[in-house]
Amino acid sequence: MSAMARPTPLSGFPEWLPQDRVVEQHVLATLRRTFELHGFAGIETRAVEPLEQLLRKGETSKEVYVLGRLQETEADAAASREGRLGLHFDLTVPFARYVLENAGKLAFPFRRYQVQKVWRGERPQDGRFREFVQADIDVVGAGSLPYHYEVELPLVIAAAFAALAEVGVPPVRILVNNRKVAEGFYRGLGLDDVEAVLRSIDKLDKIGPDAVAALLVAEAGADEVQARACLELAAVHGSDAGVVDEVRALAARHGVVSELLDEGLAELGALVTAAARRAPGVVVADLKIARGLDYYTGSVYETVLVGHEALGSVCSGGRYDTLASDGATTYPGVGLSVGVSRLVSRLLSAGLVRATRGVPTAVLVAVAEEEQRERSETVAGALRARGIPVEVAPSAAKFGKQIRHADRRGIPFVWFPGTGGAADEVKDIRSGEQVPADAAVWSPPAEDLHPRVVPAGPAPDVS
Amino acid sequence: MSAMARPTPLSGFPEWLPQDRVVEQHVLATLRRTFELHGFAGIETRAVEPLEQLLRKGETSKEVYVLGRLQETEADAAASREGRLGLHFDLTVPFARYVLENAGKLAFPFRRYQVQKVWRGERPQDGRFREFVQADIDVVGAGSLPYHYEVELPLVIAAAFAALAEVGVPPVRILVNNRKVAEGFYRGLGLDDVEAVLRSIDKLDKIGPDAVAALLVAEAGADEVQARACLELAAVHGSDAGVVDEVRALAARHGVVSELLDEGLAELGALVTAAARRAPGVVVADLKIARGLDYYTGSVYETVLVGHEALGSVCSGGRYDTLASDGATTYPGVGLSVGVSRLVSRLLSAGLVRATRGVPTAVLVAVAEEEQRERSETVAGALRARGIPVEVAPSAAKFGKQIRHADRRGIPFVWFPGTGGAADEVKDIRSGEQVPADAAVWSPPAEDLHPRVVPAGPAPDVS
Repeated sequence: MSAMARPTPLSGFPEWLPQDRVVEQHVLATLRRTFELHGFAGIETRAVEPLEQLLRKGETSKEVYVLGRLQETEADAAASREGRLGLHFDLTVPFARYVLENAGKLAFPFRRYQVQKVWRGERPQDGRFREFVQADIDVVGAGSLPYHYEVELPLVIAAAFAALAEVGVPPVRILVNNRKVAEGFYRGLGLDDVEAVLRSIDKLDKIGPDAVAALLVAEAGADEVQARACLELAAVHGSDAGVVDEVRALAARHGVVSELLDEGLAELGALVTAAARRAPGVVVADLKIARGLDYYTGSVYETVLVGHEALGSVCSGGRYDTLASDGATTYPGVGLSVGVSRLVSRLLSAGLVRATRGVPTAVLVAVAEEEQRERSETVAGALRARGIPVEVAPSAAKFGKQIRHADRRGIPFVWFPGTGGAADEVKDIRSGEQVPADAAVWSPPAEDLHPRVVPAGPAPDVS
Repeated sequence: MSAMARPTPLSGFPEWLPQDRVVEQHVLATLRRTFELHGFAGIETRAVEPLEQLLRKGETSKEVYVLGRLQETEADAAASREGRLGLHFDLTVPFARYVLENAGKLAFPFRRYQVQKVWRGERPQDGRFREFVQADIDVVGAGSLPYHYEVELPLVIAAAFAALAEVGVPPVRILVNNRKVAEGFYRGLGLDDVEAVLRSIDKLDKIGPDAVAALLVAEAGADEVQARACLELAAVHGSDAGVVDEVRALAARHGVVSELLDEGLAELGALVTAAARRAPGVVVADLKIARGLDYYTGSVYETVLVGHEALGSVCSGGRYDTLASDGATTYPGVGLSVGVSRLVSRLLSAGLVRATRGVPTAVLVAVAEEEQRERSETVAGALRARGIPVEVAPSAAKFGKQIRHADRRGIPFVWFPGTGGAADEVKDIRSGEQVPADAAVWSPPAEDLHPRVVPAGPAPDVS
């Protein structure tokens, strides 16, 4: 490559320095481990889908990056959209396609996780990127899918964040609502334009209850009493079955009778009850959650980092009665998607967690003279054979220089091969302690073997 | 998503079923582990680069996928290339850019690995894809980079493939050559159009020595004697320092005197000597290797799977004196890139390795009645807390049906929670053995805990 000016980052396309990548890798490894403990199989789909699949829902068209070939650029302008490819903007559309494509080879209910980049051509903002990593879990059934998966999946996410909390990730609150509760209540009130009600309720945090009431009247055909009832429903929240009683009482006051509402309340009640036992304090029913209720058909989930609520949801999802369908079979699903890049960028920018070092190396083997490099390589090989990450010094140099080389990288140990029959020695460059050592048996302390991710306290390690 | 016809795969965009993805994950985990044992830090770069960076070398323009926004399609046709983005076609161009962008924050020599998808709009063939995974290692220096890294890096790859051989991946042969040897020899012969000679030699396997000799005369300005000398050099190969002696003798016969040749031979000799000791039989000097010699400046590497040579190289690379440069500083580098998708697709299509199961789940906890699901969830939680991957049966069913559910997925154990004070029991569904068990202490045998990747013998496991 010829000389180029120092490049600058592309807005919306985050990249991490090695030390920060250790944090991201830890988050990803923790998610994968939790998902696998719960029996989710990892799959990966291609990054591209036919454009007509990506645009099925219509409203996402603004976000899709379309692929072109350089030579075709002029012809493309005239070409139809058919046969063209775009980058996926989430992992749900490709997963639905994968399920249909491989339905005969999958065992249902099919539990899968998927950790990949997705792309959206949106205006970048804090926590909102053009290229970012999502980590999804879904369970999909063939023909039917029992409700209990709507209870299980947010609890898998709760388990993942509980594991992340050990390294300093803030606790989360998983906010849940249920389409059936909202729709049953609105219809029972006499409001049949459910989408219009949801659109209005969705603005509650932004414009406040009075303006939402006015919107409900203007756009959802509500009268003042109906509008107030919708706002009362939206105010219900809590982390135990009391929320169900509250909604029942509210429905009774407004003369709402609805089988759909009853079904939704039974579901919501089962979720908060199981969650209160298995992940106390994490799952909160919040009946003002409207985002996603327009396309999900049962439970919906949003997840906020406690203390970082303004960041927006770091894990969202819900239940689809029709994740996919090939005409003969319908595949219902329930899933959640962790916004890994949003989470990690906040962990780093807010200084919440840090890696103990940016290199995997636990031991730098010094080289006294270039002619003795093979001697150092032999030591390195012996240590690696026992699982210890090692690099050999880049050049023969005075030992002080080699120690500075290790120090700059956060490598905790420097190994000095013995010369003239003397024993090898290894120095902990933090304490300065240097002891004789045999590469066939010596190991670093377990906490120094690999970089670790730890809560970023006010003071960094002294090194 | 509304109903759609069963989708069909996109040619050139491979995807794996869960069982095969386990194989890919194992290959990736083995590569990462080996790279980290050797002190390489993992980084990830964005998938896109400015188009003008991707097209710097010119000849790759055919391969680049350009990103467009849907609304801009018509305008795009007229738009200049400036400011446009394309998908990276390798990991070297983005790494070079990352190094320049972050030079002030990296410690040199910088050792990094990078495992990501890349995209090339080529015609798909066996082992050649439009979207595929590469796993790269590089060491890059600021200003200079000692030769010994050209010895070390192919040996890291040899170590990775040695680890993969344990699960049935065929052994590899790493073929090496050196630009300095070829250029020094050709120039010493009086042939100054080195690129033309290399282009001719590169056709040796395809068109044979006589046709190459004719090409050398026609296109590289060689006479018959010079052409024959080039072919004699190309015929030299071997896995010890004997190759150096052979080339020296050949040079002497043709009166070739070249400092560059001497330097290259010293390097090549050091590489095969170290390799013969540290990875016997793996590294072979092969002086007909010409691919890459036109842009690498020292060692070049190609890697074939023994018995699958026609697949092409599964790991290639070499030394660049100028991986990147910002004018003030030049960054030389040496690296290799494993073609993970090419390797994995062959492992699967040739039936060389297989996963013991396609789900992470080691234990399926049965549910006798839907009302007792929480009892089963409690068992599952206790097992997971000790690192055992578990799923709970999708629905209450007779035990025979639950065993079939596990069997279809390859889950080795089914757990039956005890009822009415009876002890829990766990069944190994392969042997049929069923024993009382306590979720607080029971563990599956270590070999059943996670899916394993094993050589695919002629007969699959009996289950």
